[in-house]
Parts: sequence; structure tokens; C-alpha cells
Amino acid sequence: MTFGESHGPALGCVVAGCPAGIPLETDVIRRELARRRPGGGGTATTRQEADLPELLSGVFEGKTLGTPIAIVVRNTNQRSGDYEDLRDLYRPGHADWTWEAKYGIRDHRGGGRTSGRETLGRVAAGAVAKALLREYGITIRAWTSQVAGILVPGPEDPGFDLEEGEKNPLRIPHRETAAQVLTVIEAIRKERDSAGGTVSCRVEGLPPGLGEPVFGKLDALLAMAMLSLGAAKGIEFGAGFAAAQGRGSALNDRPVPVEISPLPPGVPGLAYPENQAGGVLGGIATGMPLEFRVAFKPVPSIGQLQQTVDRRGAIRELIIQGRHDVCMVPRAVPVVEAMTALVLADLLLLRRCNRLES
Amino acid sequence: MTFGESHGPALGCVVAGCPAGIPLETDVIRRELARRRPGGGGTATTRQEADLPELLSGVFEGKTLGTPIAIVVRNTNQRSGDYEDLRDLYRPGHADWTWEAKYGIRDHRGGGRTSGRETLGRVAAGAVAKALLREYGITIRAWTSQVAGILVPGPEDPGFDLEEGEKNPLRIPHRETAAQVLTVIEAIRKERDSAGGTVSCRVEGLPPGLGEPVFGKLDALLAMAMLSLGAAKGIEFGAGFAAAQGRGSALNDRPVPVEISPLPPGVPGLAYPENQAGGVLGGIATGMPLEFRVAFKPVPSIGQLQQTVDRRGAIRELIIQGRHDVCMVPRAVPVVEAMTALVLADLLLLRRCNRLES
Amino acid sequence: MTFGESHGPALGCVVAGCPAGIPLETDVIRRELARRRPGGGGTATTRQEADLPELLSGVFEGKTLGTPIAIVVRNTNQRSGDYEDLRDLYRPGHADWTWEAKYGIRDHRGGGRTSGRETLGRVAAGAVAKALLREYGITIRAWTSQVAGILVPGPEDPGFDLEEGEKNPLRIPHRETAAQVLTVIEAIRKERDSAGGTVSCRVEGLPPGLGEPVFGKLDALLAMAMLSLGAAKGIEFGAGFAAAQGRGSALNDRPVPVEISPLPPGVPGLAYPENQAGGVLGGIATGMPLEFRVAFKPVPSIGQLQQTVDRRGAIRELIIQGRHDVCMVPRAVPVVEAMTALVLADLLLLRRCNRLES
Amino acid sequence: MTFGESHGPALGCVVAGCPAGIPLETDVIRRELARRRPGGGGTATTRQEADLPELLSGVFEGKTLGTPIAIVVRNTNQRSGDYEDLRDLYRPGHADWTWEAKYGIRDHRGGGRTSGRETLGRVAAGAVAKALLREYGITIRAWTSQVAGILVPGPEDPGFDLEEGEKNPLRIPHRETAAQVLTVIEAIRKERDSAGGTVSCRVEGLPPGLGEPVFGKLDALLAMAMLSLGAAKGIEFGAGFAAAQGRGSALNDRPVPVEISPLPPGVPGLAYPENQAGGVLGGIATGMPLEFRVAFKPVPSIGQLQQTVDRRGAIRELIIQGRHDVCMVPRAVPVVEAMTALVLADLLLLRRCNRLES
Repeated sequence: MTFGESHGPALGCVVAGCPAGIPLETDVIRRELARRRPGGGGTATTRQEADLPELLSGVFEGKTLGTPIAIVVRNTNQRSGDYEDLRDLYRPGHADWTWEAKYGIRDHRGGGRTSGRETLGRVAAGAVAKALLREYGITIRAWTSQVAGILVPGPEDPGFDLEEGEKNPLRIPHRETAAQVLTVIEAIRKERDSAGGTVSCRVEGLPPGLGEPVFGKLDALLAMAMLSLGAAKGIEFGAGFAAAQGRGSALNDRPVPVEISPLPPGVPGLAYPENQAGGVLGGIATGMPLEFRVAFKPVPSIGQLQQTVDRRGAIRELIIQGRHDVCMVPRAVPVVEAMTALVLADLLLLRRCNRLES
Repeated sequence: MTFGESHGPALGCVVAGCPAGIPLETDVIRRELARRRPGGGGTATTRQEADLPELLSGVFEGKTLGTPIAIVVRNTNQRSGDYEDLRDLYRPGHADWTWEAKYGIRDHRGGGRTSGRETLGRVAAGAVAKALLREYGITIRAWTSQVAGILVPGPEDPGFDLEEGEKNPLRIPHRETAAQVLTVIEAIRKERDSAGGTVSCRVEGLPPGLGEPVFGKLDALLAMAMLSLGAAKGIEFGAGFAAAQGRGSALNDRPVPVEISPLPPGVPGLAYPENQAGGVLGGIATGMPLEFRVAFKPVPSIGQLQQTVDRRGAIRELIIQGRHDVCMVPRAVPVVEAMTALVLADLLLLRRCNRLES
Repeated sequence: MTFGESHGPALGCVVAGCPAGIPLETDVIRRELARRRPGGGGTATTRQEADLPELLSGVFEGKTLGTPIAIVVRNTNQRSGDYEDLRDLYRPGHADWTWEAKYGIRDHRGGGRTSGRETLGRVAAGAVAKALLREYGITIRAWTSQVAGILVPGPEDPGFDLEEGEKNPLRIPHRETAAQVLTVIEAIRKERDSAGGTVSCRVEGLPPGLGEPVFGKLDALLAMAMLSLGAAKGIEFGAGFAAAQGRGSALNDRPVPVEISPLPPGVPGLAYPENQAGGVLGGIATGMPLEFRVAFKPVPSIGQLQQTVDRRGAIRELIIQGRHDVCMVPRAVPVVEAMTALVLADLLLLRRCNRLES
Repeated sequence: MTFGESHGPALGCVVAGCPAGIPLETDVIRRELARRRPGGGGTATTRQEADLPELLSGVFEGKTLGTPIAIVVRNTNQRSGDYEDLRDLYRPGHADWTWEAKYGIRDHRGGGRTSGRETLGRVAAGAVAKALLREYGITIRAWTSQVAGILVPGPEDPGFDLEEGEKNPLRIPHRETAAQVLTVIEAIRKERDSAGGTVSCRVEGLPPGLGEPVFGKLDALLAMAMLSLGAAKGIEFGAGFAAAQGRGSALNDRPVPVEISPLPPGVPGLAYPENQAGGVLGGIATGMPLEFRVAFKPVPSIGQLQQTVDRRGAIRELIIQGRHDVCMVPRAVPVVEAMTALVLADLLLLRRCNRLES
């Protein structure tokens, strides 16, 4: 549960259902929020918010109480005046009009609740979920895997280095590609245009058996979580859309026996080294790395002249001012991780109810 | 809510929350189930079930009562013996092992609950949802849009004809392509292999404003619904993954003023004729056709020799006998429609709570 | 989730979330349904249904699969014609008119979904929940504790005998009181009137810590479950309404140290022998017996002349024919047990998520 | 959804699902919170918190946006040191030990999340719900109807005056009874003891048809809401437990035709002037005043010497210091109203989904 509008007093989240006894410090949350902030490098908005989280409840003497955890982040660096001329205009590619068609009212300042700032609450909640996953030895790493048509080499490439990705503002874990993309982004910025891209995510350490068929499947819940992100237009798991062009004989991962624990009595350990399934079969984790990719459309706020419609139904011309990302894909990386953490934490708790012995 | 295993006594669903007063006949449900049955043409399993639905509750004198609607379909043509040799084997590409890793027990006959027959309950429930959507003038049409790498021309092609698609067993709405695909499928069948493909879906008549941000977005709920289907590996909306390679200036649909009703007071009508967004902005329907595409991997049950593992952890060889589809994509078409109908019906009812005047 | 109308084709339930591996036979469900049937003795309706349950899914070779368990009971002994004259009349004390005010349509035959027969689905589902509770050593026993103003002596009375209660049609666990009540019931039957009463319920073996504050408290969920029964008008826990007249010094149960396991590390065992709290503090089980009492109003269907209103708004006189209980309290006993079992089973599964060690 | 511990940084709530366009000011919330504060008169704790609410989201230019509404109240007047000696003691009648038995950890300061201060979040959320109900002309009024065994005359008494009840700290709407109770409370205070009581609640203006059978009945949801309050031990509707002693001929309310609108087409208006049902039949509002009564046990924190157990399992003596109510029933009055408002607001929105025409 998140709350808050881009230019309201604050944004935040309430995390219910977190077990008691998990170590949790404000600092951990602050660090995740910092990863979400505009990182420079010309890709990002120049709006600078401190984004300091305040932990209002649910934690006592450094550990979770089992009660709801409320986290609030104040909005401080608002220049709402920037948006006054958008009060009666519907920006192309934004949800301004659909929002009004739905509610009859909207907070026009910075997109209100549709703003990317809404993800602050998600990232804060995700930091709590990550603290839980840490207890299980589960790690989640996402990265920018394509920008403006330039593909980033994957984990099989010798130059792939996730630590490198954390250092550059593009979250591209491949030094040469990062440099190449920066040049392209700079060119797009000069054209007052914007670029889309994809985020890849890889989860290691998942226990086999995670995921609740038929209506709480691991991949289905992740698909919902990712498509709930503002600019997401698609998701694929493992071989994904390419699998739809292939043959069963090529796409069936071959199982091999391995030692895993714990498993229910009488069930042998299995691994699927080819992992074209992306770590999920029948909506249940196989124990292999979970792999998926999310497509994001370009930021719709561009500095070029666009044609649109105003509240009276008249056609108008518009040049969007204000502070906006050229490409928000790098900033989506920690959000994808946070949403993944929230889905996995839920499923980990639910899994305890699957069998009496578990 | 669906229930039932492939070779248990029956499968079915209970639909809660359907408003009172909707006309509903068993025959409508029967017709939808018939569309889901194996259609011949060499693509499909030879298991033949009558799949006659029985309406147990929630309907009185031809109209819904507002109470839960239970629909049951008996399993009659089971040859469970066919599966006895699979009791202790984990089939590659299936959820046999993940299911056991989760529950410690499974019904090995025909995949049990992971069988495609589970979708019977979904299609029956979808028939109820479609009856509700009909009252709103909303139509849902899905079709096979790619099989084994062969792309089916889209609605912009003069040969595109949805009625044609209903007539051929492949649900391909383009006569020449259908013929071409049939040849390829036949070749794959002879190789004892299987093929994947994609299903495209298009919804017309959606009222602008449908969809519940932030956690009940139209596209997010559809993504969850589609990825809950057995072999689905991905989904994309509108321009989808291609949008992730483009520029904002090209992908922002340009709004134009139109007459629409009803809208909240003071909100003008808008249309987005380019519709690269696929009918959804910010998780809310724009009123343009909703368009998405789902990727399905090939059927994992193939007649070739495969290597797998048995319950004692030993490597074994396996040739799957029994009755299986070469390509299940055509049979997924009515299921995609059903799941879409269920999501839209839920959102239509929720939408009534968005504003007091609505 | 239950479904079904009194005179529709069938009633039943679907139980989702039951863990895998629980032994479950149709016979256990049949026995619980038999306890719910009219028992003779002049208190009950003469409608005789076999009430044979059919297990459609979720169980394989005598054990639960972890998948939804569907149970159906056919309606066979319907005499819908008996109700034809009620099609346009609103019976006093029944939900006929409120139902129409809500849905604009109703199944007038035997009350449709508002019939006591709806509890068939609950009792069947409760039998599944009881099978789960059995694995934890939890026992639920309810009994008739008051009828027509005659109080039944409680467990502290030497004549109190729950086995005796199972033998007599009134479910009164006290032989002399049962005889006395039978005489009174017979007199009321002759006056063509009906009587109310209370059901008491006692649960033993609950692990301390059961119940989810703040919005899933043990007593709150039970209160909801009990007030969802047709004629229930009140519930109280432990000292209940009497506690509202007392002093803190008298009502605080005094804790004493005891050995209990398992408890979280560092937490000592406690017992509250006085148990005026009725086994629950702060919405969480104390481990003492859970005790509550439910008030049921008299059956509204009586054979006396009553004044009512018809569909055209005209005042009409009515004598209800058909088959009806003089006092339905004894038949509510297994339903109270079933609803209790369902609430406890849910909480037992949720409790696994409270702490990492649990 | 509420959050917060008694002595943490803040308490509050997030209200999701409130329709857009409802007028809402911080001041309205502040007034409701003020009603909840200790009122003097010797009944209440001397802890004085300003309890100023801050509206963080969901409201824009004085109207709700349709987005989640977050309200935070800071804790300022904490004297946590008062509670240091309770860190290792389990107070009789409190949930200290059950909480530890559940979570293995607790915030011992002022009861943490089990404190009555948790109701701050409920009252704030209730203020939002009341703003919605105001649009429908629905009014909720609760009052103290019994304290320490002294019954307060009801609405049928000429001295009954709800405005009077708002003026006196006991929320007793009857001047002479209020004076009498004050004397008794004063005597109990001197004995360092505490008293229980009941709160009665009456809702006018409910549209017939409100309430969702079978599992969202009006009375069932209210029972859950009320039993989720800290010291509640019982609830009854209309004639309640007295109905369980009566006859059908006396308890069936006699319907009479009246003019009401709107109703579904073809359904006449009805009223039940006797209203022994308390405004609800079959879980659905009849349109008559909704009437129920909640029993609260005495405050367990008393200044007398009590015997208890400490964390090492040793018996210990305890005299509770700190600031506590002698009788918290008057302060429960606005909380009962708030919880009622929340339940009714939910059902009002759900009701829109019952029929297509509604």
C-alpha cells in the first residue's frame, strides 16, 4: 500500500504482514531511496529531493514488531508553479485525461499520483521486503539491458559487471556499452526528445516451490507488479517472446538430479541448467535463477512542440517545460527490484501454508 | 475461482459478485466451452470430452440472482491408465516436479490441476463475464497471431477476417496464412515435436476511465490474468517491446477532441487515433481499442525421446504417449478472451465506486 | 465460499488454501452433514433430504492436494410448488423484501439463498477445516445452552454431558433439561409458534498466539462468522455482557506460570485458570479454552395468521404452510462448529507467517 | 488500514477506495479526534496529547482525489520511562503475554500497538467515511448506555438527549443518570478500580438493500468491526440476546407499505415500525434505524495490588502506575461511530455493484 501525490505534502507506504523480529534500520531504506534518485549523467531530471524516509511505526529497538510499518517521505523541493499552465491541458502520452475521465478531478502538479515519485513508496516498502529476503539468502539484481535500441551484453559476456552498473548513472553493467549509450542519450537530449528501454532482473536463491497456482503464480504476480509501473508496456520470462517461435524439443529444459534441501519427504532434488523457462514452471519456482525483462516506453514529457487538447476541448500547442528525465529506465532499476522483493516476500510467507510439515 | 483436476470427477468455477438481473443461459456457456475443445486439423489432442456445463446456482428463471454462480463440467473420457507410468517421472517442461517440491503430493494423471483442462472453469466463468459485458456493449476478440514463427497479418491487412478465424481450427483470421501454418504444423506433428505461438486480443467499446490505479491498473490485471495461463511466457500492450526501442516524439499518441458520453462534468471527449499505447494510459482505459499480445511456449509434451529424472533421483529416458496438442495456441484463444472478460467485468463494477455521480 | 439456493439444482462450497497432505474422506463430510439434518423430536422440519456430499476436486488417493476442494450436495426433495403463493408476498421476519430491495430479483422458493439450507455448504467446508484442526489436536464442541428461556446448566454442572447432547435431537447436553425443553417445544408447536435460543461453543487445544491484530482478531473474525448465520442476533465471549457490569479487580484473570511448548525463545508459559476472558486477550488466543455464546432469534416462519404486504404494496394476510422448524437452534449447533473451524483453520495457517522461526 | 504504536513516533491510517470529489478538510478530522481525547470528569487518563492530524495525501484543493488518503498523528506527550518496569512483566487483563506468545517481541511502552491510542487511526479514517456518508444523508450516533451496572434510559425516555450526551464527559445522553454515574465512577476511582459498560449505536438514513450476503452481511461486518476494539466482549443487534428467549409471533416485525425511493423497478416500499430486528434482515438493511449495543469489559489497568508473572516465569506483585482511564466507555463512543462509518461506507460503494441499474 503506497500513498502520496508528486506535489502533495508527502509520499509513503504502509507495509502490513511483515513478520516480527526482522532487523530493520532507517538507513537501509534511505540507501534504496538514494538509488532511485536522479543520478546525473544527463539522463535524469534536475529536480533534487533529499528523499529522507521517516519510519513511523512497526519497528522497535531495531527489529520489526509484526505490526504495520509506516514510512513517510516529505516532498520539499516542489515548484508547483511550474505546472500551473498544465492545469487545463492534457499532456500527450500521460494519464492526465484518462485520470479525469475516471475521477472527474486530478492534481495537475507534476502528474499528481501518476508521477514517477509515487514509486518512492514502493522503493521504501521494497527495502523492508529485501530485509526479509536477506534472512532467506535471496538476492535480487536488476539492470538496464537496452536503451534507445542499443542492447547491453548479458551475464554471459565477459564485460558484464553488476558493480560497474551501480557506479554509472545509466545502471548499465558493461562499461563500453554505457559509454556508447551516454553519447546517444546526450544526442537525444539535444533534440529535446526521450528514449525507452528495458530492465532485466535476475533473482538467485529462490527455494523451489515458491508461487501459488492457479491465481497466485510467481510469474503472474510479477507481471502484475511490473505492469503497474508507469511506463511499462510488456514483460517476458526466460526465453519469452522468442519461445513463442520455437519448438518443444528445443525449449524443454532437461532436468538433472542435484542435492537440495529442504524438500518435502520423498521428493528428489532437480536442477534445469538450461533454464530457458527463466526459473518458473507452472507458476512455481524451479530453484534456478528467476529471469525476466520489462519493456518501458520513452518518457512522454518532451521539450518539443506537441499538439494536444485543453479542458474546453480545443486543440492547443504545448512545449513541456519543467524537470524531466530523458530516459527513466536507469531509475526504474531499483523500482523493479523493489516490486520483485515485495512479490517474493509475500509468496515466501504464503508458502508456509502449503504443507503441514513446512 | 476455479476448481478441478484433469482426471478428477469434475472441473468448474464459482463466480461471485455478478450483479443481479443479467440474462444467462446454460447454452451460452456450452458454446464457449465448445470453442475451447480440440478442433481437429491435426493441431490438437484426440481426447474428446463432451464438456457439457451444468449450472448449479445463482440463476433463476433465466436471470442472475446476484448470488454465487456455480458451474460444473464432469470429466468423462478419462483414460487414467495412460498416465500410470508417469506417476514417478517428472516430465521436462511440465510443472510435475515444482508441484511436488511445493506440496509434496501431486495428481500425476494428465497433469492434475496443471492440465490445460483447468481452463474449462475459466472459460465457463468468462462466459458469465461476457454476458455482463454484452450489457455494456463491450466486445472481445482474440486470434492466433503467430505460430511456429509464421506471422499472421493483422487487422490492417485486407485479408484479415475474424469470422474466417472462427471457422478454421487454427483460429487464424487469414485464409492463406492458415493454410500455410497447417502445412507446417503437419510437418512438426510428423517430427513428434510441438510449436509455440502468440495470441492477439482486441477489445472494443471500453468506457474511458476503466482501471484502478495504482494497484489495480487495467494492463497490470490483464498481465496477471494472462501469465496465469499455463504456457504463457510474456505479454505486451500496444507497441510493447518495440516501444522500448523508440523515441517519445514518435510514441506519444496525439489526442484529438471527440464527442463521448458519459464523462464527468467539465471533462471533454478525447481520442488517440494512433493508439500506440494500446488503449491504456496510466493503467486506465483511453476508450481506444485495447490491444495486447501474449506469447505461449510450445507444448512440452512431445513424442520424441527425452531424458528426465524419476522420483528416486535417477536419470531416465521418456517418450510421452497419450493425447496431446501439437500447438495449443488456437485453443488458448477462447481462454484469453475469457480471462480478459473476467478482468474487465471486475473493473466495470469497481468503476462505479470511483465517483459519487457515476 | 459457498454457493447454492434452497430449491436450485445443488448447494456446495469450494475450500481454497487447504494445505496438501491432510487425510480427507467423503464419509467425514457426510457425517457432519447428517448432524445438520432435521433430527425429529418435534423441533424440526419434516423436509427430508439425503444430503449426500460429492467431492469433486482437491483430494487424491485420500489426501488433500493443496488445490481447491469442491463439494456439491444435490437438492432432491424439493416441493417448489409449496412456495408458489409466496412469489409475490414478503414474509414477516424473513429477508424476502430486503433481498428484493437489494437485487430487484429473488428466488422465492424456500427462501432461495437465504434458506437455512445454505449452511450445507458451510458445514461441508467446516468438515474440511476440522480435518486440518485434528492434525493440531484442536477440538470444537458446541451445544444448545438455552431454548425458549430455559437455561441449560453448563460444564460446571455434574449433569453436563456432551455425548448425551449428541444423542438427543435438541443437542442439549443435560438429560433433565432436555426433557423439560421437549415439553415446552411441543407446547409451542401446538400454538403454531416458534422459539429462539442460544448456542455455546468451547474450543480446546488452541495454541497461544492465534489471532491477527488489529483487523484479524480471533474474536472479531468469529463474531463476523457467527453473525453471518441467518437468525443470529448477538455474540459474547467469556463473561461477555456480564463483564460490562463488573469491575477490573474482579474481571482481570490472574496469570500463573505453566509449561507450554512451543513458544518463541525467551517467552515463559502462562495460564489464566479463571478464564473470564473466554480464552482471548487483545484478539489473540491465550491457550485457555475459547468460549463464546451466540443468540438466535425464533424461526420467523410460523403457522399463525400474520399480516404482511404483497408485491403491489397491498396489505395481505398470510398463514405459512410448508415444512419448518419450531426451533432451529439444535440444528445451528453443527453450523456454529463448522464456522468456528473455518475461522480457526485460516488463523492457524496465517500464524505461520508471524515470525521467521515459527 | 491503521498503523502506529502508543509510544512510537506517530499513529495514523491510510484510507483507500474513497471516491473522488468528496469535500474533506483537516478540521473535520481534528474535531473527531478531539471527541476521542480524555474528557476530564475523573473518568479518563490524564495523558494529554494534542492529537493534531496531518493530511498527507489524497486531497487536493479541499476535495478527495480518489487516491489513498494518508493521515498521521504524532505522539508528543510520551513518558516512556513510566513503563520501563513493565518491560519484563505481563499485566493481568492485557495482551502483553499473548502478544509475545505470538510475535516473540513487543513494544512494552503503553501497550504498544494494543494501546487504546491505536484507535486514533480508526477515528481519523472514520472521519473520512463520515464525510462520504454525509453525502448520502446517513447519520450515526453512539452513546454510553450502561456504566458499572447503571442503565441509561433509551431514546424512548423523555430525558434522553444526545446533545446533552456530547456535553458531559461520560457521553451519557441523560442528565440525571450522568450525575449518578459520575458519583459511582468517583467512588471506583478512589478504590483504584475500574468499570465496564456498554455503548449503543443508532444509524438513520440507511438505504434498504445495504449489506452483502452471505459473507459481507451488514450485521456480520459490524460485529467484526466492534469486536476488533480492544476491550469489546460482545455485541447484539435489535432485541439481541432477549430475542433468543422470545417467540416468533412476538418478534416478527410487521411490515407496512410506505413510499421510499429509489427501489428497483416493481418493488414496493416497506417499513417495519416495531424494528425488533434492529434494522437488518438477512444481513441487509431494512431502512429502519440500525440499532446495536457493544459490551466493553472494565479497563484492566488498575491501581490495586495484583499478582502476575514476569518474563522468567516467576510470580510477581504489581501496582500499575501511569495514566489510565477508570472507565473508557465514554471514549469508545466516537470509536464505535468511526468503525460503523467505515463499514457503512464500504457497503455503500459495494452496493453500486449489485444491480446494473443501480
